[in-house]
Amino acid sequence: MGDMASAYTPEEPAVHPTLSQVVSAMESLWPLGLQEGWDASGIVAGRPEQIIQRIHWAVDPVQVVANEAVASGADLVITHHPLFLRPVTSMAASTFKGKVLHTLVEQSCALITAHTNADSAVGGVSDVLAEILGLENTVPLAAAQDGLTEEGIGRVGTLPSAMRLEEFATRVYGALPAVAGGVRVAGDPDGIVSKVAITGGAGDSLFEYVRDHEADVYITADLRHHPASEAREQAMMGSDRPYLIDVSHFASEWLWLPAGANALERALADEGFSITSAVSAINTDPWDFILTSGDNATTTHDETD
Amino acid sequence: MGDMASAYTPEEPAVHPTLSQVVSAMESLWPLGLQEGWDASGIVAGRPEQIIQRIHWAVDPVQVVANEAVASGADLVITHHPLFLRPVTSMAASTFKGKVLHTLVEQSCALITAHTNADSAVGGVSDVLAEILGLENTVPLAAAQDGLTEEGIGRVGTLPSAMRLEEFATRVYGALPAVAGGVRVAGDPDGIVSKVAITGGAGDSLFEYVRDHEADVYITADLRHHPASEAREQAMMGSDRPYLIDVSHFASEWLWLPAGANALERALADEGFSITSAVSAINTDPWDFILTSGDNATTTHDETD
Amino acid sequence: MGDMASAYTPEEPAVHPTLSQVVSAMESLWPLGLQEGWDASGIVAGRPEQIIQRIHWAVDPVQVVANEAVASGADLVITHHPLFLRPVTSMAASTFKGKVLHTLVEQSCALITAHTNADSAVGGVSDVLAEILGLENTVPLAAAQDGLTEEGIGRVGTLPSAMRLEEFATRVYGALPAVAGGVRVAGDPDGIVSKVAITGGAGDSLFEYVRDHEADVYITADLRHHPASEAREQAMMGSDRPYLIDVSHFASEWLWLPAGANALERALADEGFSITSAVSAINTDPWDFILTSGDNATTTHDETD
Amino acid sequence: MGDMASAYTPEEPAVHPTLSQVVSAMESLWPLGLQEGWDASGIVAGRPEQIIQRIHWAVDPVQVVANEAVASGADLVITHHPLFLRPVTSMAASTFKGKVLHTLVEQSCALITAHTNADSAVGGVSDVLAEILGLENTVPLAAAQDGLTEEGIGRVGTLPSAMRLEEFATRVYGALPAVAGGVRVAGDPDGIVSKVAITGGAGDSLFEYVRDHEADVYITADLRHHPASEAREQAMMGSDRPYLIDVSHFASEWLWLPAGANALERALADEGFSITSAVSAINTDPWDFILTSGDNATTTHDETD
Amino acid sequence: MGDMASAYTPEEPAVHPTLSQVVSAMESLWPLGLQEGWDASGIVAGRPEQIIQRIHWAVDPVQVVANEAVASGADLVITHHPLFLRPVTSMAASTFKGKVLHTLVEQSCALITAHTNADSAVGGVSDVLAEILGLENTVPLAAAQDGLTEEGIGRVGTLPSAMRLEEFATRVYGALPAVAGGVRVAGDPDGIVSKVAITGGAGDSLFEYVRDHEADVYITADLRHHPASEAREQAMMGSDRPYLIDVSHFASEWLWLPAGANALERALADEGFSITSAVSAINTDPWDFILTSGDNATTTHDETD
Amino acid sequence: MGDMASAYTPEEPAVHPTLSQVVSAMESLWPLGLQEGWDASGIVAGRPEQIIQRIHWAVDPVQVVANEAVASGADLVITHHPLFLRPVTSMAASTFKGKVLHTLVEQSCALITAHTNADSAVGGVSDVLAEILGLENTVPLAAAQDGLTEEGIGRVGTLPSAMRLEEFATRVYGALPAVAGGVRVAGDPDGIVSKVAITGGAGDSLFEYVRDHEADVYITADLRHHPASEAREQAMMGSDRPYLIDVSHFASEWLWLPAGANALERALADEGFSITSAVSAINTDPWDFILTSGDNATTTHDETD
Repeated sequence: MGDMASAYTPEEPAVHPTLSQVVSAMESLWPLGLQEGWDASGIVAGRPEQIIQRIHWAVDPVQVVANEAVASGADLVITHHPLFLRPVTSMAASTFKGKVLHTLVEQSCALITAHTNADSAVGGVSDVLAEILGLENTVPLAAAQDGLTEEGIGRVGTLPSAMRLEEFATRVYGALPAVAGGVRVAGDPDGIVSKVAITGGAGDSLFEYVRDHEADVYITADLRHHPASEAREQAMMGSDRPYLIDVSHFASEWLWLPAGANALERALADEGFSITSAVSAINTDPWDFILTSGDNATTTHDETD
Repeated sequence: MGDMASAYTPEEPAVHPTLSQVVSAMESLWPLGLQEGWDASGIVAGRPEQIIQRIHWAVDPVQVVANEAVASGADLVITHHPLFLRPVTSMAASTFKGKVLHTLVEQSCALITAHTNADSAVGGVSDVLAEILGLENTVPLAAAQDGLTEEGIGRVGTLPSAMRLEEFATRVYGALPAVAGGVRVAGDPDGIVSKVAITGGAGDSLFEYVRDHEADVYITADLRHHPASEAREQAMMGSDRPYLIDVSHFASEWLWLPAGANALERALADEGFSITSAVSAINTDPWDFILTSGDNATTTHDETD
Repeated sequence: MGDMASAYTPEEPAVHPTLSQVVSAMESLWPLGLQEGWDASGIVAGRPEQIIQRIHWAVDPVQVVANEAVASGADLVITHHPLFLRPVTSMAASTFKGKVLHTLVEQSCALITAHTNADSAVGGVSDVLAEILGLENTVPLAAAQDGLTEEGIGRVGTLPSAMRLEEFATRVYGALPAVAGGVRVAGDPDGIVSKVAITGGAGDSLFEYVRDHEADVYITADLRHHPASEAREQAMMGSDRPYLIDVSHFASEWLWLPAGANALERALADEGFSITSAVSAINTDPWDFILTSGDNATTTHDETD
Repeated sequence: MGDMASAYTPEEPAVHPTLSQVVSAMESLWPLGLQEGWDASGIVAGRPEQIIQRIHWAVDPVQVVANEAVASGADLVITHHPLFLRPVTSMAASTFKGKVLHTLVEQSCALITAHTNADSAVGGVSDVLAEILGLENTVPLAAAQDGLTEEGIGRVGTLPSAMRLEEFATRVYGALPAVAGGVRVAGDPDGIVSKVAITGGAGDSLFEYVRDHEADVYITADLRHHPASEAREQAMMGSDRPYLIDVSHFASEWLWLPAGANALERALADEGFSITSAVSAINTDPWDFILTSGDNATTTHDETD
Repeated sequence: MGDMASAYTPEEPAVHPTLSQVVSAMESLWPLGLQEGWDASGIVAGRPEQIIQRIHWAVDPVQVVANEAVASGADLVITHHPLFLRPVTSMAASTFKGKVLHTLVEQSCALITAHTNADSAVGGVSDVLAEILGLENTVPLAAAQDGLTEEGIGRVGTLPSAMRLEEFATRVYGALPAVAGGVRVAGDPDGIVSKVAITGGAGDSLFEYVRDHEADVYITADLRHHPASEAREQAMMGSDRPYLIDVSHFASEWLWLPAGANALERALADEGFSITSAVSAINTDPWDFILTSGDNATTTHDETD
Repeated sequence: MGDMASAYTPEEPAVHPTLSQVVSAMESLWPLGLQEGWDASGIVAGRPEQIIQRIHWAVDPVQVVANEAVASGADLVITHHPLFLRPVTSMAASTFKGKVLHTLVEQSCALITAHTNADSAVGGVSDVLAEILGLENTVPLAAAQDGLTEEGIGRVGTLPSAMRLEEFATRVYGALPAVAGGVRVAGDPDGIVSKVAITGGAGDSLFEYVRDHEADVYITADLRHHPASEAREQAMMGSDRPYLIDVSHFASEWLWLPAGANALERALADEGFSITSAVSAINTDPWDFILTSGDNATTTHDETD
């Protein structure tokens, strides 16, 4: 999946920011106040005064990503998912999370998470997804309680022109980095869709909002049997909408990384600071291969190749 | 998916059981005392004194299944999933669950659920899955707290001969009814597997048991990004096991229906009662089609066709 | 208690409402938003599209009431008490509540509850009680938190002229349908009362409000030893008020049924719909007979005879 | 109700016990370990070393009882109901409970409660009730968890010969001290009863036990509309039993006082101590008069007169 | 510690207040609405109508204080600490708290607590401490949620001129009544302090407020190892402030008693009432003696002698 | 406090253990199963495979201790107190705890906590304290629920010969490392003590056990006003015992460090491993100096000098 690699090489001025200065720039883009109450975004490791020259971006703070970052000489890893969403009292390297932490701290590489704050913010994960899919007149799916009206989890918008569900699903498939599991769809392939709701990552708690917005189709990840089945049963009480498109959790969030890296570079440049960014080339979707019949499957040329 | 249909046509004696007598026979096979504390198995609708001639079996108590049952003249529907797992104060037909209830009660068709009690019992969902996959020396994955040593959620057993993960995954794929989403695998296709853990339905809360049994591979359904990713990261701290095989929730439980129908017919026959059984031919997996690249996918001839 | 029967026979135009249209009319009279957080008012059974010609009104959704409704050809039963105040996962007819549900649904008879929303609304249970007792300048005993100032549980008002407690209790007795248990009174029979607080049904959680309003007497139902004893002990610290009048829970709420039926008929007529109403003639107070000495009892001619 | 007065006048030896010694004797009769987890039995006020000559017994620790005790020169009041079931941080005499405490402590009169421990113990409230009604082969209705098999809340036993419900209710009425509210009965007056369950005080949480024992009739107090109605509906699913007899909470517990006083006198005498006992002549049932029709009421000669 | 005794001897007019009238005067000074949610201030014992001639003030409602009060002929004890902070169901004199209550009630001596309401009010415990230490421009450390801006727990203010920590600690030591444990200090003796935060009693839950106010030193009581150690570690991440001064819980609150007694006398005098006040001469700090090395200890002449 | 330094210099064989091997040896001495449910003992940082040559022991994992350890070339710090008793999701060095972690991990120095497991174990903190004070026939103060009878929090034992409280307090003072705050005592200096209860660290939750053992004196740390005052009030209801001796939390636990280091060296030597131990020379008691009057204070020659 080398196609997922992304390298930014701005001309390098003399001044690099400290970790604290990077944190400040991130706060202006993805304020921590936007994160959900159960989230754990923000700085996880690193000394505030250390100099940051090279930032490594990834979805998951897993061991191969930590190895990749350290090998590339990165001073800071920014991931979408928190390393410690559940709080801990031990970082021993005998645990897989503690080992990641040791890999980074031993090499003086810091770690920051931008999770639901980046989902919610303007220009964040949800906005990038909506833009890539060409949605117009987007509004948040679930508005932030204490934020701007443009902030909140997920987005809802309309397609420039309505199309068949199968056609739209093919567009979604083509927009995402390729993973083994592909894209699953529930609904009539010939049903016409115009209004689209999306949530990067796992969005099965947001069906009420999808129905309130009367979206024709809902794109999200990690849909299990019961939430998907109940959502479809309820849809069939009325217009048969929303249809469902279940994508890779990893893939749906990966799309934001280049945009996020770009935004942070610009925010730091505005302060007179220079950094180098890299987006991890590693696919951290956990699935390695899939077996399907040809009956209901569409083998699609991977457009990101 | 007509291949999933199953029709039992024993010679029909004169005596049919009441609903109460069916409940008693089911209690001997899948005792309600084996269900989990949060479950809602047992009789959902029906009059205890009504005569049961025809039983309709299905995984999900959804509207098309209720319609199918009533159209076929069934007196009783037995499903694996509860209609009301979360308790309710209204059965109004303006809700999709209430509509299912009205469809059945208006036509005097009863409804019984056999869920985690059937998962746990000897000869239940887990045992049928293990038998179909050819596992030997099976024991429960998580032993029942107040049951026999053979009872409990999931099963662990060994293959008669070790094989490559990809080969085993193909066997799993072939054993299950075909659904759009196929079978996803995490792990080295060439890794050798011998000890197998399985849980019908969603089993992501049982990873500790899988590790305690030192299974080489774990087959279950509804695995989301984070549980799967964390299980794989922890596996990589050691022998890289367990590998993961994520199957359709519906498909993994459908396999039990013919065996369950058969067992109940025999139990009733032992009491001198005759009934007719049918297994629903409807695929209630929520996904209708899938898009995949050919890169990591194996298009397999559907052996159940 | 045939005297409790009530038959409305408006001339019958051609247009009957659907169940959904009846629900809308009820919402305008007794909005569900007024119900208490623990209540379960609203539609319990029925198909939204079914035609409603005949409505049967009762306090309690018990089996004899369901039998009566079905025998009379009713399409809808409206009760004051919920069938399922505690939520359930089974409606099996082997339970007494499930049997009521089967009786109704098998005969396509719907069921709606109007409980604490009808207690609280203008023209609801409390207002009808106050009006029958001749109270003036009534205000809610406990004002609704998010409603109009006229809405809330219970009512407080003044009698046109003050009278002896015993005389007032006799008036209360005469206003209520006759039940075996009669009306119990705590206080000096010769004490003069002018300000009256009432709560239909069980009102022992509202003593603070009664004291805040400085009511002379409190009429409610289901007063047990400790709440009554403590209320009287506290009263004796001051003016010996409020006195207590404990009436039949059933009787106190039955009074609303004719008024409720009348109001709903008019609300539907305003929309151009015609229905027939009947108020159940069955006394569902659980007590069948009483034994008392003549010492403290007043045998009163039953004025409703 | 002077008939309720009871005066014990044993010959008075020289030795009186201390409060601590009375507590020890009570512990041997009604151990505190038998009380329910939510109860607050035991010593409420008094100095352990004070000499106890005269003990005053009552059901309720209300102001008139405290006045009566102090006026009679009592050193100790023993009540069935706790003064402070809900714990408090203030005993100010501006509250009615604090005023009772001041009345007693200012006059050096101690206060002890024997509540659910006395309900449960052998020879306690439940046993006295069963004996007065002539029950045979009695066992606890709900056995004590950590006690003897003879201990527990309520009792179940059989009548020497079966009789009509109305006849039995008349016997119950006659056995209890007269109160305004009388005795209410639910069930067929001509139904035959043989097995009887009783709970002194409020017993509506024990219906499951009553059904498990297959009692024909259940005598208890403070039955409200919903528990009584639901118990009767459930009864009508089968044999129409148990019938219900709702008695005065006060009256059902008052019966124990003379027996309790007698038992304590004997227990103290065994230790060489002498005391004088008196049972309060005050009716603390909160109801002063009742209004009933003659239709369903039986005016009974008060046999305790 | 006779130096702590304080006797107010205003000329005695003829009119003494009732307990209710004293309560009203206290409400105007230290409103109960200012107390914390977990507190139990207000009247604990006494009859509202009793006449109050002599009031005894103390920090702790312990037995020796009750004895002292009764021996001195007091009608009312006012303490800072509640007798029953945790609610109780028994006041038996076999418990040490019940014995205090019996001592007082038997001698008709009332008891009132003024705790966190007196901490928070203007002119309360915190204000008196701040004034004695000479703080200027004081504001509450943690502002009251529903009170005036001058009300709240603790105070922060500045010294007229900055001084060394050791010098300031010596001033604190000299201002407090002498107790065995002395005054402990954490910080550089030569560090300069200007901004001072204080909380009478135990203030270890308020460190966040101390840091928000950027106080140089925090004076409070009952600081344990972990809160003190963590506060110092956090201080060392920056300016090494706040330093900590740990004083006797008793001593820090005793200072308010003479001021409180004076304020209440004046408030009652404004209503035309006369009382006599006395402040207890008993040191109720639990520690009797201390052993220290001379190395880090400063033996100071007790200025209050 | 150089006197607290302790250097072990066994002859150094060639074989050093890994961190995992040190953990195993510690488990044999202070099993993690003995820790309290709220505790967080065990490995906090470090790689299981790293070689441990030098171990640094301290009570508190504070910054100066981490600096000292790293400067001395230690591979492992063992502390009594956990770094993260409350779990965290961030170890950023902008927090004082995260900074300690960075200091250690950056220099490949591991961290292990032995807290309530070391309090409870045989030969642990409590046993060392008891031995130093010369107690005989010691048993646990609160026996471990699932451990040996010799295990549990605290110890109770008897002095070889009874002595005056003041004399015993002087012995306690002399046995502990000198800290600014000294040793506070509540009780009659001339009272005779024989049975002694001790708990290292904060033991104010264990008063019930102290009373059950009928100890004459209780030695613990961090006693605040209310627990100490209530314990003394309750003592005065009887024999005036237990007296209280409040020592430095740090000092009471420091005593265990040399014994713990010694035990671990021996346990590792039994496995053929060699390490070097050092006990931190830093006093981490938070208090720097104290001010006392001479009245109740005893200035004692510091015997550990």
